[in-house]
Amino acid sequence: MQITILGGGGFLGRKLAQRLAREGQLGDQAITGLTLFDLNAPPPLDAPFPVRRLAGDIADPAAVQAAVPAGTGVVVHLAAVVSAQAEADFDLGLRVNLQGTLAVLQACRALATPPRVVFTSSVASFSGGQEARLEDDARQLPGNSYGAEKAMGELLLQDASRRGFVDAVNIRLPTVIIRPGRPNKAASSFVSAILREPLLGLETDLPVGEAFAVWICSPRRAVDWFLHAMTMDTKGLGLDRGINPPGRSATVGKMLSALEAVAGPEARARVRHAPDPAIEAIVGTWPASFTAERARRLLGFSEQESLEEIIEAFIADDLAATRAERGL
Amino acid sequence: MQITILGGGGFLGRKLAQRLAREGQLGDQAITGLTLFDLNAPPPLDAPFPVRRLAGDIADPAAVQAAVPAGTGVVVHLAAVVSAQAEADFDLGLRVNLQGTLAVLQACRALATPPRVVFTSSVASFSGGQEARLEDDARQLPGNSYGAEKAMGELLLQDASRRGFVDAVNIRLPTVIIRPGRPNKAASSFVSAILREPLLGLETDLPVGEAFAVWICSPRRAVDWFLHAMTMDTKGLGLDRGINPPGRSATVGKMLSALEAVAGPEARARVRHAPDPAIEAIVGTWPASFTAERARRLLGFSEQESLEEIIEAFIADDLAATRAERGL
Repeated sequence: MQITILGGGGFLGRKLAQRLAREGQLGDQAITGLTLFDLNAPPPLDAPFPVRRLAGDIADPAAVQAAVPAGTGVVVHLAAVVSAQAEADFDLGLRVNLQGTLAVLQACRALATPPRVVFTSSVASFSGGQEARLEDDARQLPGNSYGAEKAMGELLLQDASRRGFVDAVNIRLPTVIIRPGRPNKAASSFVSAILREPLLGLETDLPVGEAFAVWICSPRRAVDWFLHAMTMDTKGLGLDRGINPPGRSATVGKMLSALEAVAGPEARARVRHAPDPAIEAIVGTWPASFTAERARRLLGFSEQESLEEIIEAFIADDLAATRAERGL
Repeated sequence: MQITILGGGGFLGRKLAQRLAREGQLGDQAITGLTLFDLNAPPPLDAPFPVRRLAGDIADPAAVQAAVPAGTGVVVHLAAVVSAQAEADFDLGLRVNLQGTLAVLQACRALATPPRVVFTSSVASFSGGQEARLEDDARQLPGNSYGAEKAMGELLLQDASRRGFVDAVNIRLPTVIIRPGRPNKAASSFVSAILREPLLGLETDLPVGEAFAVWICSPRRAVDWFLHAMTMDTKGLGLDRGINPPGRSATVGKMLSALEAVAGPEARARVRHAPDPAIEAIVGTWPASFTAERARRLLGFSEQESLEEIIEAFIADDLAATRAERGL
């Protein structure tokens, strides 16, 4: 089983690669090779199978084709520019998030056997806002360019699946917390920052109120979902390749209470209220909740841990590396 | 007011151009120039304003930019490859229906003032089938590549409208009857053929049963809708630039009864039952009905004529030209 991770140098791509290296197999099949592709070459990975690390532009068809060699059985497509960046640079967003996904499809079509493609779409492809609890057949009416590009990518891969060119699973990821490293250009960056920065002993800004609810998932669970999507039986999906996985709807206040429970009131005190209407304008259109019935009941996607467990998992998995990376 | 019609040599593009030529103005603004663009140069048009007729590839950014000159206030984007053709040639469909729409957007962004863009999407962008009566917020889950590409185009122009690059109205056209000329590669070609061919004295095949229902509109009403979309106030649309216009749900049996009422039993007898599972597989996924509440009640889109009036309008507007074109 040959696997490619596009965006393999990113936060989730690296976690998925590490998990594959640890397990050595996918489902009941031995992994015979892994290609990690990103704008900069992904870091080395200690694995019981050969690992290729490639640097390239996801919108360059030749570069993507090199990253999807003959015999590839699974392609995980995580490469994207994030929400605030796609909002700041419309052309960059279209190039990476739309033309990039087209290049991925064309590379997959060159394979002798249609590969499984796991594509990360996003909660940002929906509208709804704080009052929403969206059903599985909810319409995608994006209020940001990133979400629009993700919804277009879903349509493309869904149609290509119907035609038998690929066998795609489009996972609409919730906001993933807690992201390691530094704040990034995602409009949702604060949702991780209000937990991560205090754990690092740093102050951070909260741009929304404590009653603001976010549809979240943990990095561990996101990786579990990718592994499930890489191996699941897709026959029951029919035309509909879009999955709303079972995230958790949590208010900022609940997140801060969990932080206090795990790390004490001094950690919570490092979060400063600093309303930012520009951030709220973007994330305020994302639905705060989904029923996720299909993923949960029919398709076997796993549930979230508690907020306390998510914070403890960050401390166990990522806190030391984040300290080291940031020289703290 | 400078206007461009992309796909201006096609059936609806020509009818819209003729209507603009007849009226000489759009709303209360005089038309100062019209550009007609198609793969082959559109036919000459007798008009009280200058008319440019250009041949070019809709996926060629330079060609499209030439068709959208400085000062263009309204672009009507009708250029597309039709459903059966996009199904037969996936790459052609993507190039024309997706990359073409991207080229249109980029040409519009080069203008000093964001133009109104009227984009024709399609009932084929929805699933639902014979039992469906879709609400205005129904999800687009296309069962064919043409519909997927149209839904992607809608997302693109909708997001570009939110950003202020264009001011788009995306009209999901029903199956338009009665198309003049010859049968074409649209899977829905038969819906016109079962009325047009008998009026020409020719036999024709009916690939579905008489109980099969289709969401239809007339060419006259489609042109009315385009004119409305070219001038309507778009402030009330919000994020949602998609319009399900008030078509009519009609069974094939009702259409044939209307044919008989207008042209006699000998006309109806020219329709042969010839089931075609390939055609039914495509059109059978298209919803047979929409509520169209928003277009009808809030946005002022006009209602359909009766089936008899639609047939009589074809006889008045298109029968002689179709006879001449086909040498009958």
